[in-house]
Amino acid sequence: MLGLMQDWPMTVDRIIDHAATWHGTVPLVERAVDGFRSAGWADVRSRARRLSGALLAAGIRPGDRVATMAWNGIAHIEAWFGIMGIGAVCHTLNPRLFADQIVWIVNHAADRILIVDATLYPVIAPLRARMPTLERILVIAADTGALPDGTTDYDAFVADGDNGAAWGQFDENSACGLCYTSGTTGNPKGVLYSHRSNYLHTLMTLQADIMGLSSRDVVLPIVPMFHANAWGLVFSAPAVGAQMVLPGPRLDGASVAELIERHGVTFSAAVPTVWLALLQYLKASGRRPDTLRRVAIGGSACPAAIIRDFNDLYGVEVVHLWGMTETSPVGSCGAMTPALAALPHAEQLPWRLKQGRPALGIDMRLVADDGTALPHDGRTVGHLLVRGPAVVRAYLNDPTPILDEDGWFDTGDIATIDGQGFMQITDRAKDVIKSGGEWISSIEIENIVVGHPQVAVAAVIGIPHPKWDERPLLIVQPIPGRTPAAADLLAHLDGRIARWWMPDRAVFLSAIPLGATGKIDKKALRAMAETGAFDEVQADFTASQNNSGPS
Amino acid sequence: MLGLMQDWPMTVDRIIDHAATWHGTVPLVERAVDGFRSAGWADVRSRARRLSGALLAAGIRPGDRVATMAWNGIAHIEAWFGIMGIGAVCHTLNPRLFADQIVWIVNHAADRILIVDATLYPVIAPLRARMPTLERILVIAADTGALPDGTTDYDAFVADGDNGAAWGQFDENSACGLCYTSGTTGNPKGVLYSHRSNYLHTLMTLQADIMGLSSRDVVLPIVPMFHANAWGLVFSAPAVGAQMVLPGPRLDGASVAELIERHGVTFSAAVPTVWLALLQYLKASGRRPDTLRRVAIGGSACPAAIIRDFNDLYGVEVVHLWGMTETSPVGSCGAMTPALAALPHAEQLPWRLKQGRPALGIDMRLVADDGTALPHDGRTVGHLLVRGPAVVRAYLNDPTPILDEDGWFDTGDIATIDGQGFMQITDRAKDVIKSGGEWISSIEIENIVVGHPQVAVAAVIGIPHPKWDERPLLIVQPIPGRTPAAADLLAHLDGRIARWWMPDRAVFLSAIPLGATGKIDKKALRAMAETGAFDEVQADFTASQNNSGPS
Repeated sequence: MLGLMQDWPMTVDRIIDHAATWHGTVPLVERAVDGFRSAGWADVRSRARRLSGALLAAGIRPGDRVATMAWNGIAHIEAWFGIMGIGAVCHTLNPRLFADQIVWIVNHAADRILIVDATLYPVIAPLRARMPTLERILVIAADTGALPDGTTDYDAFVADGDNGAAWGQFDENSACGLCYTSGTTGNPKGVLYSHRSNYLHTLMTLQADIMGLSSRDVVLPIVPMFHANAWGLVFSAPAVGAQMVLPGPRLDGASVAELIERHGVTFSAAVPTVWLALLQYLKASGRRPDTLRRVAIGGSACPAAIIRDFNDLYGVEVVHLWGMTETSPVGSCGAMTPALAALPHAEQLPWRLKQGRPALGIDMRLVADDGTALPHDGRTVGHLLVRGPAVVRAYLNDPTPILDEDGWFDTGDIATIDGQGFMQITDRAKDVIKSGGEWISSIEIENIVVGHPQVAVAAVIGIPHPKWDERPLLIVQPIPGRTPAAADLLAHLDGRIARWWMPDRAVFLSAIPLGATGKIDKKALRAMAETGAFDEVQADFTASQNNSGPS
Repeated sequence: MLGLMQDWPMTVDRIIDHAATWHGTVPLVERAVDGFRSAGWADVRSRARRLSGALLAAGIRPGDRVATMAWNGIAHIEAWFGIMGIGAVCHTLNPRLFADQIVWIVNHAADRILIVDATLYPVIAPLRARMPTLERILVIAADTGALPDGTTDYDAFVADGDNGAAWGQFDENSACGLCYTSGTTGNPKGVLYSHRSNYLHTLMTLQADIMGLSSRDVVLPIVPMFHANAWGLVFSAPAVGAQMVLPGPRLDGASVAELIERHGVTFSAAVPTVWLALLQYLKASGRRPDTLRRVAIGGSACPAAIIRDFNDLYGVEVVHLWGMTETSPVGSCGAMTPALAALPHAEQLPWRLKQGRPALGIDMRLVADDGTALPHDGRTVGHLLVRGPAVVRAYLNDPTPILDEDGWFDTGDIATIDGQGFMQITDRAKDVIKSGGEWISSIEIENIVVGHPQVAVAAVIGIPHPKWDERPLLIVQPIPGRTPAAADLLAHLDGRIARWWMPDRAVFLSAIPLGATGKIDKKALRAMAETGAFDEVQADFTASQNNSGPS
């Protein structure tokens, strides 16, 4: 017996329709190359529909891929809804990827049209001949300079579009967005979102214990739209009729502080490095982000100093998120329980540093190597599995099964879950260091070393060891101008980790290699270790402390 | 091209699974007949699964109807999830309905089992012979007295259940819950909710601009579970892991105040009459609801005094909701825009009195008699239509089409929508008074008259008039012991409504008839008018003020 409720497909065109109808004059403000510009949600929808009409006229059909390579701006948001509204697939390209990766991805996705910021066109220009599926390139804000050869002005393309194109009214399981994971091993993998998954992810993240946005919020998404959908904010802000402030390419501390002040930002989202820069700027300048109430932090573990400074200096709550491209991306959030919320902020910190609990709409479990469930005791380390309507089922054009028989997806993260349900990532499975049959958490060591005043970035990798299988190597990028002694770093770690977790050696690099999403590239570090790059470098720890195995 | 995200049916068993896994020890507290008892979300799930096993053993299969007639209590919540978890349909019965309506509804639904509170069994006992589909009656808390003949003890039934019964894993469009509308005209109509509609309604109402519950809330649902699903709180509280306080049958001001104080209630939901009684008690006793932050009010328009008193005296925000059984039930909410939120509370009142804006997940439009769209100008009155995944498509076993060709459902409400998107109900279509070709809002007049200090309840109905078609009749139930003069009421209205809206007569009743959900029964009032019941009663307005038509 089926229920008798309406068949109302959850397609994302309904999100922008809702914003235009009920919050039509609520503004989006963008810092463009040539100054600030703004539009209301009704304007965004109107131009998105014109783009839809123009794409249809250009032969784009449901399921066809249209790529974007753009910073967070109004035209980029229009483009998303214009592409998705007719059932085409919006493929966000990360301009920070290596050229070969961009070419590989565009060809793998068979993108037919690319919409690109004029300032990013130089990334694309030298690659065009290698991307034969691209029939057309639309350049945003081309009026700030000459239109490159063989491209079309985006605004002119939109202006020619019919604004009466039919929107939505297709299966909610239709493909909607495409984002490739940065792929630290093997080729990049395409995650193909559906309208249903994006719509549900929007509702999931709107819960009070995740982002809890309201129509009174002014939302500044610093996390780029090409980085896991800007954590869904391009959908969740119009869903509630929030204002948006779009930063364009300038994400430094001073620029972000100016946006917050000038536009009354209440909520923002970014990776830790952005917040470190903002806090540094605020402290140095004495400016205060008075309107800011909450900042979402994800992408990598959030250092304690960020959480503490935001709270103690500015009264801003940090919303600590965990997720991945494959989870749309939000998977869990460190919202406090009633008991924790009653503690002083400093005493809440151990839980605020964890990645938190899943909200309704995502299932999560911790398992041993053999798949058996592990206890939620805060100590037992295991593989983190997830399941849900906004979790990937398979990668694009890749027959490899990625779910187990019960539908669980292995995140590749290693974690604990404590008695209050707080999950904490201790490592990536591929980065975990196996020493004497036990696991050493590289992330835990890194987080402590980064707390040393002379350290900018720290990485710990496992290097082969004849007796212990692997042993940790500490790689440190000092703050410019500082020269920390390895012995100091060791002393800094002493007593904070088990003695057998102690790295046997420390090496110093002026720049630790980062991947396209700003995360430490451990694959590159391991390659450097394998080729002997660290062999001749400083190694002044007193050689293995006779504590190199688990006690 | 379909997306590659997981097929994860949205079934409500996943809501209680989530609560049990991540918020398992968070308590529900119930005021039972014999004192307070409590359980955690994990206990609720565990007993719900046993009930599922017992229902399966009793031959209940997916789609079969199992009815409940119970106050808001822990066993009732268990019963919902135990019934729904195996794909059976939970049919909530309102004990306040007339006996004939109960019989009609149970037979129409073909309920196979009834789960009933011992204190409500006397409602059922005399009707059993007329409800032949009922194979079995399970009595909750039968241990407080002798088990009635031919009934089964609910606890014993649950205790015998197998707790390993398979849950969920069926089509999300499966029927899940059944609730009959009170049916002021014709027979009651059955609204058959699906798992999908209940799951989505849960996410919709969790938005910050609707209920915005978090894991730090203590939720007191005063609105009964048989009244439009207690506005979804039985799903939304476990969805976020909130505590629940369940009031049982005692809903008077002192009892509610005691629950708030004793259990630290932060959020509650009820119809206006409950809040009037609570505020009256609080003012008289000098007690304060210190933990309470927000109260949701719906079911009928909220008087200004409630909103003002809650804010001014106790710092409690009123969440003004509109909806109906057919919308699962929440349709709109009076959350403030940024501009309104910046005003002093007293200046926000005109908008707080409106029924507000729809949140993502419900479409709303205003149309003329001929179906053409009407402007959002705050003045133009029209029919309110809704559409969405939690809106009814058809009534149970009733072939009458109820949607127009674009899928819109006519709510039967007459409303305006203003330039900021705030909807305001001005009448029920069947209660609207048509005078001289224009519409008079009975609700607007009633709201003003109720503001008179000597008036308890006011109703305005249209009575036939040879020249003007209809003219308004004012029917007043004075506060006990008071005898307001009709001329005073007229003076109270003067200047607040158009002169041609002025009722020609006022009559006084010691008790205005109410329907089973506590709303004024205008059908009964019109019947009284037709049979001449008001003809001989006081009629001291100076006969028609020569203003009886629109100017």
